[in-house]
This record gives sequence, structure tokens and C-alpha cells, in this order.
Amino acid sequence: MYGAVIHAPGDVRYEERDEPTIIEPTDAVIRVVAACVCGSDLWRYRGISPVPQPTPIGHEYCGVVEQVGSAVTTVKPGDFVVGGFNPCDNTCAACRKGATANCLNAAHYSGCQADKLRVPLADGTLVATPGMPDEDLIPSILALSDVMCTGWHAAVSAGVGPSTTVAVVGDGAVGLCAVLAAVQLGAPVVIAMSRHESRQKVATTFGATHIVAERDEAGIAAIKALTDGIGADCVLECVGTEEARAQASGSVRVGGNIGLVGVPHGDLPTDQFFWKNVGIKGGPANCRAYLPHLLELVLARTINPGIVFDLELPLSEIAEAYAAMDERRAIKSLVRPVVQGV
Amino acid sequence: MYGAVIHAPGDVRYEERDEPTIIEPTDAVIRVVAACVCGSDLWRYRGISPVPQPTPIGHEYCGVVEQVGSAVTTVKPGDFVVGGFNPCDNTCAACRKGATANCLNAAHYSGCQADKLRVPLADGTLVATPGMPDEDLIPSILALSDVMCTGWHAAVSAGVGPSTTVAVVGDGAVGLCAVLAAVQLGAPVVIAMSRHESRQKVATTFGATHIVAERDEAGIAAIKALTDGIGADCVLECVGTEEARAQASGSVRVGGNIGLVGVPHGDLPTDQFFWKNVGIKGGPANCRAYLPHLLELVLARTINPGIVFDLELPLSEIAEAYAAMDERRAIKSLVRPVVQGV
Repeated sequence: MYGAVIHAPGDVRYEERDEPTIIEPTDAVIRVVAACVCGSDLWRYRGISPVPQPTPIGHEYCGVVEQVGSAVTTVKPGDFVVGGFNPCDNTCAACRKGATANCLNAAHYSGCQADKLRVPLADGTLVATPGMPDEDLIPSILALSDVMCTGWHAAVSAGVGPSTTVAVVGDGAVGLCAVLAAVQLGAPVVIAMSRHESRQKVATTFGATHIVAERDEAGIAAIKALTDGIGADCVLECVGTEEARAQASGSVRVGGNIGLVGVPHGDLPTDQFFWKNVGIKGGPANCRAYLPHLLELVLARTINPGIVFDLELPLSEIAEAYAAMDERRAIKSLVRPVVQGV
Repeated sequence: MYGAVIHAPGDVRYEERDEPTIIEPTDAVIRVVAACVCGSDLWRYRGISPVPQPTPIGHEYCGVVEQVGSAVTTVKPGDFVVGGFNPCDNTCAACRKGATANCLNAAHYSGCQADKLRVPLADGTLVATPGMPDEDLIPSILALSDVMCTGWHAAVSAGVGPSTTVAVVGDGAVGLCAVLAAVQLGAPVVIAMSRHESRQKVATTFGATHIVAERDEAGIAAIKALTDGIGADCVLECVGTEEARAQASGSVRVGGNIGLVGVPHGDLPTDQFFWKNVGIKGGPANCRAYLPHLLELVLARTINPGIVFDLELPLSEIAEAYAAMDERRAIKSLVRPVVQGV
């Protein structure tokens, strides 16, 4: 089979790889129907994270089960499935609390941008659709593998609800999904911070009530003007840079909450939150905990996170899928294995 | 009148001070019935915070209104009142969100360990009891001025509720009140970390279900043994030292929350919480938001936070009140003006 392999910064290749097989009795092997490129894949692509050796890449996918190990009971060959980027058993003490991102028996994928994929802990990780989904729903189902769950996680972590004002820092795919999550969770005011017209448009489609194009102090002033002068109850920080954290910290009201899904670098200065009574919570998303509900919303066509994919290519053009995101020509790239489909 | 004045580390004196008067129309002047010494007062007593000049000290009190300014409408001379350590107007946009600790018009006291006291923003700050309270309730009402509200704030900030396991780091008056708060908020498992028999006894009286005397790794192991192997859902950090934060960070489960009311020094390393999906929230307590409910619980004799006072002295012996707390001979010292009472 074929798949993506990163060799060095800027060098992702479509090349032949070994067919995956069942190794553990809890494994499944699936035929990938669609996969995509994540902002975090770009860390290695941009040389921010090291690439010590050629490595299969990708952690988002949906597809059809081909084989299951002897211990797998909840999915079977022929099922259309989606799994979160962080496989889990969904039965350990942490998973039972909903903390599936921190499963005590967590496992990892080896390169989902490929024709086929071994899914560890298949019972815990995969959720099957009832029958084959409509073709046009594939992008939205694929979005549940990471970005939509991550945006949802930002909103849940910040305590977004029917009476909270929300500002979203970051207009990448995760930030846009965070807008959709906040709207879906009932927030009456959802402010998307974005300077890019195409992204503003997606945010508005997702239900953002306001767009703030300004940044820094002007951005903070604009948020305060929309929130009774005090800042948003909940700020969803979907970038991870120091600038984004400062934007979040300045835009949140005293006693409010920052939902953090952009991987933070460095330490958090306590005076940014303690004296203001600002809460900070976030981390890798509890995909498995959110998947059943979000899949239901997608299948009912209540949410359509798949519109964050504004570039679709055959898997063989994976190099261009990366380049387009790296150069910000695309919000997010979807790839489909070449000779396959639903 | 007389009151406490701190002159230098280790040097708190009972001396004559000017009678307080109404300055702003929103002020009240009260006759202090009881006041007390706070762990945070010890920062200056111990030389951790500077004492640039002789300064009236104390921020916890209850008493009887003597005079009110022309704009005050909710309390009147003769009312028995208690106020939080952080005066607020209780009407601004932040207060309306319950963030009274961060009132946009916040004011400050000038030395509550005194015969009389000027209370700024009296309408926002003070809550009156219906009639004169029973004498034996005075310590518990006084506790609402800071420690009980602060313990409550730790629990609320960490999201304590009827299904959460709780561990409390710190067995000072605030930590013990945090135990009481967690029990009152319905937590089925409330673990008090304490090595001191007298404090363990208060924690047990307050409803702690378990006592853990160990610290560091052994303390973390003991907490995990009581919480399904994963740590507590909510850890209430009521100390503020780096050691206490490490204890909290090690004792909380993945996806759990740390309620922080010990003033943190330095920065928070992101890897202590982001990858574990641990939330951190806290700061100065929203006393005014909590006071009506907590006062009701005290008057109904549902809670008795006043037992944290294990030393009572006349105000004239304020120096000993400080020394006893400094030397950990007392958990918390209550002082009463010499010729006055209810």
C-alpha cells in the first residue's frame, strides 16, 4: 500500500509502505476513505519539531473496517468508522471519568495519511456509523477525528454554556470548529477573531455573532466593547503562541475562563490569571468522550464542520496538501486514497 | 479609639488611632465586635512583605453599624453586619457576573483589628443579620469575612459538586474551611491532608471522610489509593508554596481541577497541567457573592466555621494573637475590642 512519509522538514513523500496487520487482539485494520493534514503535522514540516528518520505521518482519518482482532466486539468488517487522534480503551478509570485523552492505556497511530491503517484499542477508539454515510458527509465525519473534537474541547474546558459570552482566538480549522462548538453549546455571543475574509466567512457560517479583525490592544478593546466593557466569559485559545495567550488573557473577563487547546510553550505567569480569578483549562481533546454526540449531530446535518476543508487532493499529492497549508493557501487539506472510496 | 498597627516584622502594637469617620457618602462606620488575624497578615509580620511605615492592619471583622453615609440604603445604624475582606459595589458589570473580588470599583480597608472601622462601599460590601445574632455564632460569622469564603472559593473554583472526589492541600484555617465547603457542596469523598492532630480533628468535625498525614510522593500515593488509582477530581490548594502546588499537581487526576487560593509565587510550568488536561482556577474570593448563602448556613447552624478559632484574646493582646499564629501555637486568633461586645 501507499502512504505519506515525512523525511525531513518540507519533505513529505507519497511512497510504498508495509500493509498494516493485526498485531494485538484489540486491533482493527481499516481501509482509509479520507484523511487530512493537521496544523500539528506542520511542526515537523516546518522544522520546529525534529524528524530524526523517515516517519509515516498523519493522525486523522475515517474509513471502513477490513479486519478485526479476536478481542474486538463493537466494530466489524464493513463498518464505516471514525476514531479520535488519540486511541484509548474507553474503560479505564480515567476514561470512565471522560478523560479519554489521558487514557491509562493510551496507544498511538503510525501514519494515518495512507491507504490502510492499524487502529489499536479498536473497541475503545472507533465509533461506527449506522450504515454507510452519505458521500457529502465524509468531510464532516473526518473533522471529528481531531479538529471538531478539539474545538469542542476548548469550549467544554472553558465552561461554555447558554449564558456565556465567548471569544475565539485563532482562525485555523480548530478555532473555526471552536466557534461552531460555542454556538452549538448555546452561547448567545460568539466572537471570532480573524483577519482573513475566507475564514471570517466560515466563522459566520458556523454561527459567529461577531467578527473582530483587530489584534493586540485594539482586539482586546473590540472584545470588551461587545461584552459590557469587561471581556468575554470564556476565551477559546486555539493557537498556542505567547501572542495568542496574551490576546486570550487580555480578552477574558475577571472571573472568566480560558479554554486552551493550542499547545502552550513555556510557563504561564501567575499574574496573568490568579489576581483576575481567571481559570485555565485544556489539553489534548477527549475525542472518544465527545464522538458519539458529535457524530449524531453530523449525521443529523445539525453541524457541518467539514467545510473547514477548502482543499481536496488525492493522497498521491500529499506533498501539495502540506505545502498549501504551510503557505496558508488552504485552511485544511483533505486527502483521499487514490483507487478507493466509499 | 485603639487598634493594631504593624511597625516592623514581628512588631504589632495595640495603640491609639484616629476615630474613623464617614468620608464618602457610600461609607459606613462600624463598631467592631470581633476581628481576627489572617495568614496573609503574617507575610508582613514575618518580613516576607515589606513594612515601609507603621500601618494599621487587619481585614476581617464583624460588628454593629454606628453611622452611614447619605447614599447608603441597605444597612442602618444598629444593624449587625459582616463584610468580606475585599469591599465591592456589588453592582458593576464584574460584580453582576459574581466576580465581586474583582469589582471594577474595588476599595480597601485600613486596619480592621480595631475598635471601629470605616467600611467603604457599604451597600455592596456589608450583609446584615436579621436581628442580633446569638453570641456563640460570632466566631462563625466572623469566619465569613475571609477564611470560610476563601475555602468556599477554592471549592467553587475547582468545580466541587455531588459527584466529585476532593483532596485539600493545607490544614490552616482556609484549608479546613475548604474541607467544610467541599462537604457542604456534596462531595462524597473529602480528603484532608494534615499531620497535626488538632487540625485533623477540626477537619473530621467538618466532615472530612479521610485524613492523609503523608506528604510528597507518599501523600500522592495515599490520595490515589483513595481515588480509584487516578487522583482526586478536585484538589483545593490552600497554601501557595511551590511544594503545595506540586502536591496538588501530583494529587489531581487527569482531566481534574485545581482550585487555587494560596497566593502563587512564580510561574506555572505548563507541563504540570496542559498534557494532563488539568484545570487551574482561583484567586481572591468572591466574598460578597457567597456571603448571603453562607450567612444563612451559619445562622441555621448548618455550618460552624468558627471552630477554626482556637485562640481568643482581647484586642489589647494583639501582639500575642500574632505570635501564637506565627509560632503555630494557634490555627487562627480571634480578638475582641476591650470594652465592647454585642
